[in-house]
Amino acid sequence: MNFASDNAWCAHPAVMAALTDANHGAMMGYGADAVTAAAEAALREVLEAPEAVIRFVATGTAANALVCAQLAPGFGRIYCHEDAHIETSECAAPEFFTGGAKLVTLPGAGGKIAPETLTEAIRRGAAGGLNEGRNAMVSITNATEWGTLYSVAEVTALAEIAHAGGLPLHMDGARFANAVAGLGVTAADLTWRAGVDALCFGGTKNGAMGAEAMVFFDPAQAENFDYRRKQSGHVFSKNRYLAAQMLALATDGLWLELGRLANAKAARLAEGILAAGGGLILPVQSNAVFATLPTAAHQRARAAGVRYHLWPDKSAEGLDPVPLRLVTAWDTPDEEIEGFLRLIG
Amino acid sequence: MNFASDNAWCAHPAVMAALTDANHGAMMGYGADAVTAAAEAALREVLEAPEAVIRFVATGTAANALVCAQLAPGFGRIYCHEDAHIETSECAAPEFFTGGAKLVTLPGAGGKIAPETLTEAIRRGAAGGLNEGRNAMVSITNATEWGTLYSVAEVTALAEIAHAGGLPLHMDGARFANAVAGLGVTAADLTWRAGVDALCFGGTKNGAMGAEAMVFFDPAQAENFDYRRKQSGHVFSKNRYLAAQMLALATDGLWLELGRLANAKAARLAEGILAAGGGLILPVQSNAVFATLPTAAHQRARAAGVRYHLWPDKSAEGLDPVPLRLVTAWDTPDEEIEGFLRLIG
Amino acid sequence: MNFASDNAWCAHPAVMAALTDANHGAMMGYGADAVTAAAEAALREVLEAPEAVIRFVATGTAANALVCAQLAPGFGRIYCHEDAHIETSECAAPEFFTGGAKLVTLPGAGGKIAPETLTEAIRRGAAGGLNEGRNAMVSITNATEWGTLYSVAEVTALAEIAHAGGLPLHMDGARFANAVAGLGVTAADLTWRAGVDALCFGGTKNGAMGAEAMVFFDPAQAENFDYRRKQSGHVFSKNRYLAAQMLALATDGLWLELGRLANAKAARLAEGILAAGGGLILPVQSNAVFATLPTAAHQRARAAGVRYHLWPDKSAEGLDPVPLRLVTAWDTPDEEIEGFLRLIG
Amino acid sequence: MNFASDNAWCAHPAVMAALTDANHGAMMGYGADAVTAAAEAALREVLEAPEAVIRFVATGTAANALVCAQLAPGFGRIYCHEDAHIETSECAAPEFFTGGAKLVTLPGAGGKIAPETLTEAIRRGAAGGLNEGRNAMVSITNATEWGTLYSVAEVTALAEIAHAGGLPLHMDGARFANAVAGLGVTAADLTWRAGVDALCFGGTKNGAMGAEAMVFFDPAQAENFDYRRKQSGHVFSKNRYLAAQMLALATDGLWLELGRLANAKAARLAEGILAAGGGLILPVQSNAVFATLPTAAHQRARAAGVRYHLWPDKSAEGLDPVPLRLVTAWDTPDEEIEGFLRLIG
Repeated sequence: MNFASDNAWCAHPAVMAALTDANHGAMMGYGADAVTAAAEAALREVLEAPEAVIRFVATGTAANALVCAQLAPGFGRIYCHEDAHIETSECAAPEFFTGGAKLVTLPGAGGKIAPETLTEAIRRGAAGGLNEGRNAMVSITNATEWGTLYSVAEVTALAEIAHAGGLPLHMDGARFANAVAGLGVTAADLTWRAGVDALCFGGTKNGAMGAEAMVFFDPAQAENFDYRRKQSGHVFSKNRYLAAQMLALATDGLWLELGRLANAKAARLAEGILAAGGGLILPVQSNAVFATLPTAAHQRARAAGVRYHLWPDKSAEGLDPVPLRLVTAWDTPDEEIEGFLRLIG
Repeated sequence: MNFASDNAWCAHPAVMAALTDANHGAMMGYGADAVTAAAEAALREVLEAPEAVIRFVATGTAANALVCAQLAPGFGRIYCHEDAHIETSECAAPEFFTGGAKLVTLPGAGGKIAPETLTEAIRRGAAGGLNEGRNAMVSITNATEWGTLYSVAEVTALAEIAHAGGLPLHMDGARFANAVAGLGVTAADLTWRAGVDALCFGGTKNGAMGAEAMVFFDPAQAENFDYRRKQSGHVFSKNRYLAAQMLALATDGLWLELGRLANAKAARLAEGILAAGGGLILPVQSNAVFATLPTAAHQRARAAGVRYHLWPDKSAEGLDPVPLRLVTAWDTPDEEIEGFLRLIG
Repeated sequence: MNFASDNAWCAHPAVMAALTDANHGAMMGYGADAVTAAAEAALREVLEAPEAVIRFVATGTAANALVCAQLAPGFGRIYCHEDAHIETSECAAPEFFTGGAKLVTLPGAGGKIAPETLTEAIRRGAAGGLNEGRNAMVSITNATEWGTLYSVAEVTALAEIAHAGGLPLHMDGARFANAVAGLGVTAADLTWRAGVDALCFGGTKNGAMGAEAMVFFDPAQAENFDYRRKQSGHVFSKNRYLAAQMLALATDGLWLELGRLANAKAARLAEGILAAGGGLILPVQSNAVFATLPTAAHQRARAAGVRYHLWPDKSAEGLDPVPLRLVTAWDTPDEEIEGFLRLIG
Repeated sequence: MNFASDNAWCAHPAVMAALTDANHGAMMGYGADAVTAAAEAALREVLEAPEAVIRFVATGTAANALVCAQLAPGFGRIYCHEDAHIETSECAAPEFFTGGAKLVTLPGAGGKIAPETLTEAIRRGAAGGLNEGRNAMVSITNATEWGTLYSVAEVTALAEIAHAGGLPLHMDGARFANAVAGLGVTAADLTWRAGVDALCFGGTKNGAMGAEAMVFFDPAQAENFDYRRKQSGHVFSKNRYLAAQMLALATDGLWLELGRLANAKAARLAEGILAAGGGLILPVQSNAVFATLPTAAHQRARAAGVRYHLWPDKSAEGLDPVPLRLVTAWDTPDEEIEGFLRLIG
């Protein structure tokens, strides 16, 4: 039973099939192949963004850091939530790729930045002068690191504030499918129509082996981006195998269906936890469950080898009830979910 | 007919099978999985290097640049051939990853650095003081960018010179299998027994989708390397899929067999070109053929849609005979080779 | 009347005289001159550290950032106070020089890090794994950005915690003279005897034109440091002029005398402010006064053209009383102090 | 007797006087002072460039590297002569400041790039694609590292080629005064009127303690440049002392007069060397003399303690005649010159 992360699970059969399909004959390297063209086109269609510049890399850290480097100079200030993946989980990749940009972290309930918090932060940064560096960009995560969702209206509000300050808005969508599925909106509504400038569209946690798309809705903001990707070692020579994964996900709404599946499994987990006497730290809106378990239940689960993270880290071990994070994937087995719920019941 | 590059061709069925094998059940992320452990172990066995630290990335540029950053500081001098891939084809990735290290390029016939050239370069660098930066490492490519091979004795000689100057020796082995197959030696003899400190063992051109191994024979030289890899976005969360590819290649000598196959196809090409009245710029020792074709033969090939690179670039178009580069892969179809030879015959 | 910063004031006549003394005849460049040797020796004597490696640069940002880059890799975590100059006032220079290191900021009353805060932060960083980056160094400022002082015992406690975690301790001593003068201890007691590994010894605010010393008490920690300084453009060709300034300050205890003078002027300011009905936000321990003034007094001062900073920034303008920062230098005229006190009285 | 470098000599009395003049009263920091404003204005007048953005730093390496970082991205190609100071003598500062840009070095007689060489290099870079990085800028040095001069016509020709390729032209003018004096043209004619986009106007070798001006003739190319300078630690808090030096040089044509003086001393040296049976490797056009001396003469000079550099390095020691470099400054004593000539005569 593994609820440690959605990246602990597998690639979807359609992804495997797309790889097999792509695996014949010669194709020119570095993205000049038909699979890459098809994948980019399919994703532009998903996003209803015919002009968007789309490129693929294999990891979410690379996608986020490359977008940061494209939008922020080394002396830039990047505004993000204090629990943002780019701040907590990427080993300072944004700082490295940008040449030193400072992540200015903002507090916010449920992993979300409130409009007034962003307004004030941008105001202070703009007032600061050389000492503080220059306001450069805003980054939000949707679904957030706490499994919550920014609504279209919330994204729009933040985008307006960012743009009023002259800053582009980046959305880290490592779990973008979960967000779109959870909100029941279109990908376009949640991104460019709401003012998002650049999106990292996550494939890996969605059901790929390792594939992420970087999307610049305004081609002007993607100028020379390919050089940046190349210099960081993130251009595949056999790019067809990266593209094939995204092509499979973007075809026939598979990405969204997998997002729905994962979300539904999280909802079932949450329901069962409450029924078993546990609690929810936050409402479950996507595929992550932040819950508390009575110590005895936690110990039974651990003894049975169930994998999940204490929250925020191992120092939670002694607490009662025990705070923890459970994440589901499209292929988390239902029997594992039910087995876990029986264990803690 | 595609002889543009060995990366224009496919992944081997055994690689596909290994991916399918790896694609079930949950595994912990970021390399803490059984497939990764097995792949690292298999490669250590191939290299007869039980202590070696081995890590995987998806691209050759990443592998080379990360090793450079591990072995050279930003103020370092990295000695390499003037036609080295790290100098000519990686968009200054080594400079970026190291924080500014200077590639000091050396001339040398057939893409190889002569011992006396390296000795003199290291001497001058050591004499230079702060202005020139500090001697940091030596990098050679085997097989070279010209398809030639450094023998064990030649590698040993360069390693001794490098080590005498206090510098580690890196081998860019994007086509390492072709080198080992061409020389008929063991991987160990060509690397650590000859004094190589760090090897990039290429999987992509060998028959993977996108997988390269970085090998540090002395674990002390790999200290904190995982952080560096993480910060550059080159740690896969679902690392099993990267590892599975290398595991397939490292199993039952597949990597070497594929290297032999590609080499044999290049040998057949070379033989046929000579028979057809073409010339060889260099003897063919691995899977690259640097040849000249009479203009008429070249024009017939181009008209038939055969893909290859003029050498060193398109400015060769007007020359007679026409200099060009042809590269074979393990799966370059024999009928394409014979068809090409008929065209130019 | 200028209390905006100690860098708003002048160079001491002895500094000017030393520059004139140094200004004759030919000397070899880049620090290979007698003035540089004398200045380094004089500072080693001040610090009772005959083995220390000492180098000069012209700005405090350069000094701090270079020391950070020497002690922390790009994937490193640098622990500092949330109000540390390296965090708030150097435009992300430490991030740039290190290649991306993350400043992990810690809260703390009066600009000082409490031992338990540091202990917990280091523990969490060590537990974090690749995601968070690697614990690398601790940086404290003395005198702090709030004008307060770490005592010898406090520095010792932090050094022990840092060292227990394997981390070196850096002291940003932009106002080191003010700290030593305020505490009435020796420079050695406050630094290497207390466990400080690297010190930035500030000259600019002390009475130089622009000169700072970087001191590595353990020469092993200064390995190759000169290359780093050179690569960042901070090696003067006519280094004598940088060194002469430090030589003047280090001679006959001038640095300490100037620190005492500045501190005494701040004490007088504080005393007068209290007498005038203002308040002190913090006790005055060095040459900075964080005070509150009744709005009317503030307005009279502003109307008279007195320069000082509202605190923490201009948004304090509407508050009553008004929080502000006043800084004195060795040469802040006593008549300006008395004039200001009359204005607000 | 010291002919090692022009940076081995002193600051001009007018520079000292300007420092003394600036050394009274409070001034706001970081360049917001009257001396800085006056120095910038004076230099704009010298250059007949009322719109130019001008900033000061203390070292030539900083000036060059900052301009490179302003004009070239990390994935950029910077074209320069193979003997350019930025390539040979700055410890890879341009690579560090830019985040990895590659210096593409070009051969050329007498330290000068020929127009056809530049044309061909830019053509190849533009044809290269991602592998080679993106064409970014051209940098020339005037006076060159070989003491030769680019004429106005030669600069114009290179500027036209650079601009035709979309690249800005940088002039490293560490010895700009010597160039202007040697050519007998105006500073404007040799720079912006000839197409130069950015100039490093050298003060240090001209007679300052340590001061260089970076000049962007088109303000649009200087956008956000102050942040870059700040982040690299090159903004002085007491900026008046940096500016005062440049103000002295820019006043009443002192910079040009000092350039003329140094040039005249080099001319006298060259004349005397020829008269003494030595040879000139290149005609003397500024303040550097590349000459050959009979071994016996060289040995007499060395025995007498005369300082100069063998050329290109110490490996020239055994040659007969001995190649060497002699550099003069505005204050190289005539008696040293005559004494040296007597020694070798």
